[in-house]
Amino acid sequence: MHDALQTLGLKVSEADQPKLTRIDLLDQQALPDHEVWVDATAPETMISAIRALKVRGAPLIGVAAALCLGHYARSHVPEAIQLVALALRQARPTAVNLMWAIDRLMQLPAEAMWPEALAILQEDINLCQRMGTAGADLLANGDGVLTHCNTGGLATAGIGTALGVIRTAWEQGKELHVYVDETRPLLQGGRLTTWELEHLNIPYTLITDNMAAMLMQQGKVQKVITGADRIARNGDSANKIGTYSVAVNAHYHQIPFYIAAPYSTLDATCASGSEIPIETRAAEEVQGVVQAQQSLRWAPATAPVYNPAFDVTPASLISAWITDQGVFTSAEALYGSGPV
Amino acid sequence: MHDALQTLGLKVSEADQPKLTRIDLLDQQALPDHEVWVDATAPETMISAIRALKVRGAPLIGVAAALCLGHYARSHVPEAIQLVALALRQARPTAVNLMWAIDRLMQLPAEAMWPEALAILQEDINLCQRMGTAGADLLANGDGVLTHCNTGGLATAGIGTALGVIRTAWEQGKELHVYVDETRPLLQGGRLTTWELEHLNIPYTLITDNMAAMLMQQGKVQKVITGADRIARNGDSANKIGTYSVAVNAHYHQIPFYIAAPYSTLDATCASGSEIPIETRAAEEVQGVVQAQQSLRWAPATAPVYNPAFDVTPASLISAWITDQGVFTSAEALYGSGPV
Repeated sequence: MHDALQTLGLKVSEADQPKLTRIDLLDQQALPDHEVWVDATAPETMISAIRALKVRGAPLIGVAAALCLGHYARSHVPEAIQLVALALRQARPTAVNLMWAIDRLMQLPAEAMWPEALAILQEDINLCQRMGTAGADLLANGDGVLTHCNTGGLATAGIGTALGVIRTAWEQGKELHVYVDETRPLLQGGRLTTWELEHLNIPYTLITDNMAAMLMQQGKVQKVITGADRIARNGDSANKIGTYSVAVNAHYHQIPFYIAAPYSTLDATCASGSEIPIETRAAEEVQGVVQAQQSLRWAPATAPVYNPAFDVTPASLISAWITDQGVFTSAEALYGSGPV
Repeated sequence: MHDALQTLGLKVSEADQPKLTRIDLLDQQALPDHEVWVDATAPETMISAIRALKVRGAPLIGVAAALCLGHYARSHVPEAIQLVALALRQARPTAVNLMWAIDRLMQLPAEAMWPEALAILQEDINLCQRMGTAGADLLANGDGVLTHCNTGGLATAGIGTALGVIRTAWEQGKELHVYVDETRPLLQGGRLTTWELEHLNIPYTLITDNMAAMLMQQGKVQKVITGADRIARNGDSANKIGTYSVAVNAHYHQIPFYIAAPYSTLDATCASGSEIPIETRAAEEVQGVVQAQQSLRWAPATAPVYNPAFDVTPASLISAWITDQGVFTSAEALYGSGPV
């Protein structure tokens, strides 16, 4: 058994014999109170882990799915690999990094897929570092920075996207205070971003999503940074539900609103945000809170619910996109820049 | 024992002997799954019921506190009545109806307080009816109406404020669809407004607070109506945390944003919203969900939290105030109109 390759949310234990390789995921539904690792080497367990949000964050989903497919390809026939690729693509419809990672593997011969998946993992680490460095310049000493959902080490293989920018600026010595939207319904901010910030010793305050506007009104927020799951050709950006509301509020309060995302989030096949498919999820998530360890319903069990997992922020509300290729203030510049 | 005087959230059982009079409250922390009535006749139980939000909604708090004080005054000396009045006033600092109701009783001789409290209750029923009729004209057939928190029969002695307007328009035959903000952290929308709408058979959809903006973007919301806990002289209006965010979003999407509140919500002694005291509450409410039957924490127990119970929406974002005296589109007209 070789040394395990481990990130905050993912562990690859590689053996000389492919059959002994394991891909483990930190079950993000059990955090912050329980650190439970689950074996997601088999495609069916990986797919259900993606669906159940045990692994989440657009970049990490891409990396995890690539590892799963790459490993599977080492010992299966092309027809089976095709089927697994299809099933993985369908596990979460909004995150384009997932499609991008699968496509990147599927254009290669089977034996090249596993090394490619490991390369994607390593690239994601490097991308995060470059995004962090590019974006940190936008944050000033003393800033209050509001973020939504979780975009840190748990959402990527590296230091993260939006949270990676905050972390990089903090490590450069800038005094920051992070305001963390709890991010209903699945509470990635309340459960995961808090957990990461505690570990990083970066000062923060947890709020419910509907308090962000009041903080802006009070002058406590100088910058907003979120991630993205897909960026259309015109710059419209899909991200976790609630991002659009934050962007509208930032616009009203004349606060810069930044998106931090790797170039694999760009989708030139989507002309605008209206073409981005938005996943809708189970009513139970809004009728109460659904977690791995414990669930609680507070609304009537019959309450009709709307539960879109993502929303689309129009390019007009986005001050800049922070990518591994640099910072871009228009969709034209963003799409003209990178390897897409 | 006379017949009990009962509203959706309050029950007064009057006896020939004052000592046998009882004031019971429907414990709103136990709804929607459990309908538990609690005896809050004694000032100490009433005060803790107000603090614990077993009784809530600015108008109903005023009515309940008046009944408690009025009943207490029947058998206590002036010094004791003074102390109870003071303690009741301090139970919730933001709702001005509470101060207004206490003041109204305290300017009377002790023996006149109980009849006055019963008059306040009856007046609230009538006020709600007039507000409902005045506001219903603002809603059109086919409207999607977004509301925040709970402002119905559970928040008042009558049909409610914002929800009373919606109910009146619905009973006039207008087809409406209500979008219910769950209203974190205490989930008055998810627990109470849903429960009321189910009983009234008015079609609705429950959403998390951060989805409201997306619904507006999609053109599903034609009007927003909320209540208010205090309205300053310049029209700035304090209401449940999250109201301001909704108002900013309504403004951006050019959707009318209405406040529905009785004249007892006006506070001419506050020049502007910055003078309205905002109650901040326990961190536990944001670290998880705190309920009567069951609580659940999902954030780290050490997570620093900001938990203001209310926010202030500036007059500039309010299209009109719907009151029992009619509909007013400016603070000047609002303050020039009524008995304040």
